[in-house]
Amino acid sequence: MIVVMKPNATQEEVDHIVDRVNGHGLKPHVIKGTERTVIAAVGDDRKLDVAALETAPGVSRVVPVLAPYKRASREVQNEPTVVSRGSLTLGGNHLGVIAGPCSVESEEQIMQSARAVKAAGGTALRGGAFKPRTSPYSFQGLKEEGLKLLAVAREETGLAVVTEVMASEDIGLVSEYADVLQIGARNMQNYRLLAAVGEAERPVLLKRGPSATLDELLLAAEYILDAGNNDVILCERGIRTFESHTRFTLPLASVTYLRAKTHLPIVVDPSHGTGHAWMVPDMAAASVAIGADGLIIEMHPDPENALSDGYQSLDFAQFATTMERCRVIAEAIGKEMPRVASSKEKAPVAT
Amino acid sequence: MIVVMKPNATQEEVDHIVDRVNGHGLKPHVIKGTERTVIAAVGDDRKLDVAALETAPGVSRVVPVLAPYKRASREVQNEPTVVSRGSLTLGGNHLGVIAGPCSVESEEQIMQSARAVKAAGGTALRGGAFKPRTSPYSFQGLKEEGLKLLAVAREETGLAVVTEVMASEDIGLVSEYADVLQIGARNMQNYRLLAAVGEAERPVLLKRGPSATLDELLLAAEYILDAGNNDVILCERGIRTFESHTRFTLPLASVTYLRAKTHLPIVVDPSHGTGHAWMVPDMAAASVAIGADGLIIEMHPDPENALSDGYQSLDFAQFATTMERCRVIAEAIGKEMPRVASSKEKAPVAT
Amino acid sequence: MIVVMKPNATQEEVDHIVDRVNGHGLKPHVIKGTERTVIAAVGDDRKLDVAALETAPGVSRVVPVLAPYKRASREVQNEPTVVSRGSLTLGGNHLGVIAGPCSVESEEQIMQSARAVKAAGGTALRGGAFKPRTSPYSFQGLKEEGLKLLAVAREETGLAVVTEVMASEDIGLVSEYADVLQIGARNMQNYRLLAAVGEAERPVLLKRGPSATLDELLLAAEYILDAGNNDVILCERGIRTFESHTRFTLPLASVTYLRAKTHLPIVVDPSHGTGHAWMVPDMAAASVAIGADGLIIEMHPDPENALSDGYQSLDFAQFATTMERCRVIAEAIGKEMPRVASSKEKAPVAT
Amino acid sequence: MIVVMKPNATQEEVDHIVDRVNGHGLKPHVIKGTERTVIAAVGDDRKLDVAALETAPGVSRVVPVLAPYKRASREVQNEPTVVSRGSLTLGGNHLGVIAGPCSVESEEQIMQSARAVKAAGGTALRGGAFKPRTSPYSFQGLKEEGLKLLAVAREETGLAVVTEVMASEDIGLVSEYADVLQIGARNMQNYRLLAAVGEAERPVLLKRGPSATLDELLLAAEYILDAGNNDVILCERGIRTFESHTRFTLPLASVTYLRAKTHLPIVVDPSHGTGHAWMVPDMAAASVAIGADGLIIEMHPDPENALSDGYQSLDFAQFATTMERCRVIAEAIGKEMPRVASSKEKAPVAT
Repeated sequence: MIVVMKPNATQEEVDHIVDRVNGHGLKPHVIKGTERTVIAAVGDDRKLDVAALETAPGVSRVVPVLAPYKRASREVQNEPTVVSRGSLTLGGNHLGVIAGPCSVESEEQIMQSARAVKAAGGTALRGGAFKPRTSPYSFQGLKEEGLKLLAVAREETGLAVVTEVMASEDIGLVSEYADVLQIGARNMQNYRLLAAVGEAERPVLLKRGPSATLDELLLAAEYILDAGNNDVILCERGIRTFESHTRFTLPLASVTYLRAKTHLPIVVDPSHGTGHAWMVPDMAAASVAIGADGLIIEMHPDPENALSDGYQSLDFAQFATTMERCRVIAEAIGKEMPRVASSKEKAPVAT
Repeated sequence: MIVVMKPNATQEEVDHIVDRVNGHGLKPHVIKGTERTVIAAVGDDRKLDVAALETAPGVSRVVPVLAPYKRASREVQNEPTVVSRGSLTLGGNHLGVIAGPCSVESEEQIMQSARAVKAAGGTALRGGAFKPRTSPYSFQGLKEEGLKLLAVAREETGLAVVTEVMASEDIGLVSEYADVLQIGARNMQNYRLLAAVGEAERPVLLKRGPSATLDELLLAAEYILDAGNNDVILCERGIRTFESHTRFTLPLASVTYLRAKTHLPIVVDPSHGTGHAWMVPDMAAASVAIGADGLIIEMHPDPENALSDGYQSLDFAQFATTMERCRVIAEAIGKEMPRVASSKEKAPVAT
Repeated sequence: MIVVMKPNATQEEVDHIVDRVNGHGLKPHVIKGTERTVIAAVGDDRKLDVAALETAPGVSRVVPVLAPYKRASREVQNEPTVVSRGSLTLGGNHLGVIAGPCSVESEEQIMQSARAVKAAGGTALRGGAFKPRTSPYSFQGLKEEGLKLLAVAREETGLAVVTEVMASEDIGLVSEYADVLQIGARNMQNYRLLAAVGEAERPVLLKRGPSATLDELLLAAEYILDAGNNDVILCERGIRTFESHTRFTLPLASVTYLRAKTHLPIVVDPSHGTGHAWMVPDMAAASVAIGADGLIIEMHPDPENALSDGYQSLDFAQFATTMERCRVIAEAIGKEMPRVASSKEKAPVAT
Repeated sequence: MIVVMKPNATQEEVDHIVDRVNGHGLKPHVIKGTERTVIAAVGDDRKLDVAALETAPGVSRVVPVLAPYKRASREVQNEPTVVSRGSLTLGGNHLGVIAGPCSVESEEQIMQSARAVKAAGGTALRGGAFKPRTSPYSFQGLKEEGLKLLAVAREETGLAVVTEVMASEDIGLVSEYADVLQIGARNMQNYRLLAAVGEAERPVLLKRGPSATLDELLLAAEYILDAGNNDVILCERGIRTFESHTRFTLPLASVTYLRAKTHLPIVVDPSHGTGHAWMVPDMAAASVAIGADGLIIEMHPDPENALSDGYQSLDFAQFATTMERCRVIAEAIGKEMPRVASSKEKAPVAT
């Protein structure tokens, strides 16, 4: 870290910081500038709460130098992590497409959706069984019944199943049916849950919270990695800004930034990232162009009547067209966007 | 809700919406404007996902009319809820001050803090035993040992204890020691946890998430109220904006807005709301002036060496001065800011 | 507009609004809901300050229904406006690329840049002569000398010149040398300047202010259109959000939204939109994929030593690679990205 | 500045930065950490565009150390600047209250307003004659006629007049009538205008742009100071955030921050800062409590019918009540909130 002193800091105040830095086991270097003194502290301060030095007399601010995460960083592992589970492969040169309804509503709805996902070239099925809803009065999901329907859909189509887990106590149950455990944006900093999925034997799709910084996202991933689970997929799904023509603002530069900092694959969610179905195809295309490792898209047989997120769900025809647009771009930039084999025998099975 | 059609919407498209509205059991009123048609739908649409109509052909947007929450609203209960537990009373004309360190670190630290809180006129003690930390490498709290120390501090000082609960499975344990259960900002939309504290027999201090809208905060409160717990205290602790001279931006107008919409008491956290100890006294004074029902303030015997949040913690002298400033304003505007009785016999006991 | 009354609004309060609406020459429709009354007012209220009705007793809020702009809207002109001036054509199927240094610094610098722009396939040259700088101590541009150098570069390369005009009194001078007048983000709501360029005989590139809504951007364009200049190019260059790994956040969904609402061409600025040179190529590619009508990119012969914006300027090799990436995607999606003819004779001349 | 190298930066890359730093006339100090090397560059880099070093190979980021402004800083002048003009005094212990309608609409309207301002204890009159309006279709102000009416109001009441100047060419005209020149939020970075008012012989009220950082605000002030005008009043009027229950978010911590960094007086605008009349009194009270040097408040004889900003304008009774609330707090904290003398003879005259 670097401690920037106030312009009028006294020698005594500087000495005090030098003592503190030494006391933390770091090595201080004092640099007297023309207007201010700065003190560089050499050493790993990740476990210290060094920002507290801001309260010391004469200190203007404390600037961290080290990235706060380790396991997620390119420095620890430079080659990209490829996450593969059943029909879904993400990372490296593999572009995965996870699609399906926001919520599992009925067997007919999820089966139709799964077939449409597969027909259009999606590589995994999404669908919520446990639904975190802003209002207690909204549909809360079919719970275990929903999980069972997802498994039936996988059985027929061979598509890997991605579904959300909302609480530690559900991990066992959800893992019986799901291939990938999703941590929703609202739970990105539910650290108890993160640690728990860190012990699950399933890849984890970790969605960015709408006000989380990318460092906070990587530190959330670090909780999972630190617990022993290396298969973490990061998901950009939009942030809260003053823009009101979209529900959230989708900052695609996250893909660029994260790819530089981490080896973990990065998926973009253009459905939540725009909040309006008619905007999804464009953002999906742009996400592929910028080099995302995957997409997660909401679609529904009848969006107007969806029990949740209908406003941002594509219908089947729109989804198919979107996939075609993405495929053209993926091919132009040399990314692989495979189709799932149609024979059931080849269907991957979650074990 | 009101459905605003596109300028070129056809009669068929309008009819389709009328059908949908009827199908939802609402009553449609079609108003043909000079440039656009709007359809007002009369009835309670809180349980419907009416925004999905946005995807219907010819629809421009859907405008909700009803507030999405009910129990938290002034319409259901107009008189202010006063939450009282041990030494802490919040709401109506009562100004409560919850103060203490971010984390319980040791017996000496929490006892010194509790005495300083009481001496300066604080009415409850805060201190984290289970700590949600951005990094897995940071101090995670003393857990049950911390809870026990908090109870010792209450025993001596008579101050009610406010502490965070991070997961449903901890509620029983935390309730053994705490007077008020705090839901942290990161867990504001952890709905499983909200429902669980809704069944606890303790008041709940619910902190606003840094990107949550106030409607979302009220809906989170609604989960707790809906589960049967009426003692919910709302806490504004700052939102994420582009400002970087503060860690979060503290929008004090939230107090004004919430007071108009809800009967629940509203507490301001100037520590997280600024993120810098030197800014806390000013914002505490402003919070009292605007009519907050309470304050929650971080203080520590030695902020420079705090294991967490030192940068935003007042030392004891600063805290005492801050309390004096607040008291002057509270008195000027006719708010009661009581002192906790000094004799142990009078100390309230959590049962 | 629609006036939403408070739940407890009295008949008298409703009648008062009905009177006001009538008084404005609009036609009121009163709809009594189960919990609230709403009053829809039919007619063109664009010239009224109808939001003032919010202060009337019993009113909860006023919801506008009409888009506030007219000339910029698809309703007034559905077919896309194609702006063409010299070598630059934007809109419809034409993808234009405006590139060059932030500031004109010297003849050598601008000539080298212009040649590199053209060699890589750019279709116009940018370069600032009058520079709005955050600090009064920063380089403020070469002013008329800079304009002359731009004209020399056009003379040799045939590239149209895009440069900023900071004040009404400079429009005449700048128009002597420039093909397109740029209004910088800081001046997006400098209405006097907007009205003045509305009378200039040059296309105007209007940059979005970092906190402007898209409606505000379109209303700024409306000032120019209303003054008689139909050649307005909109430019998305990023908004201010809490993200700090980019200098601004580039919300590409703006392209999607604006294309639906307006006939004006839309250019993306990935340089300001990210604020870091290494992020520019990715965002340029994504901008093409989403269907932008053009790009404006900062490049410099020696970014490390640029007098302004070096941190976000590509060097020549990076620019050429970026253009190749964009071209591949443009071709895949059927957009035309022409090269400027190499013979001087064909070079367009600003008149 | 401090240059933070990437973890894997080579010695050659470090040497390159050392050369660059030397080349800029700064003195480099290289500190090799356990994971990264940082290079501290000693000297005044305010006129250099040092951030451009970010594009050099091996560089991770460049951290500025010096505040970018000088004249506005406490380091150049520690004692607070008191701005005094006619009836208005701001700064030090003096609390000024500028109030009046958004726009001057008629003689009756402005005269009534001026009398109400004075009667309630305001110390200056605001009113727009040249109005920057988001839409070209909105009322644009009475222009010179409005200025004349303001002067008449001053003549009768003795209140100093604060009014906006939108363009350099108007400064002479506006100065004939006004005591204080206001630069609106939209023009905060209209540097040509800033330099021009820097040469005017009137105090300048400079409003913060809704996406400007406080450093950018201080640099805008620096343009005015640098041109020779020392009487700059800073005005916080809210920033753009995701909050939608207020039109802008009013970050009162700005007062705390600015007071620490600059000697210039700081005024808060609770009208624009909330955007709803009913929220203004609370925020005015909080602004006084936090120690603002002044308030600027919109009021109108008939807000519902105001030609601009009616939704955020107090009526006379609300204004008087607000002033009483503010006075109680001002007295409690020892601030002077004087009343303007009622005899005309004592009325200050702008010359």
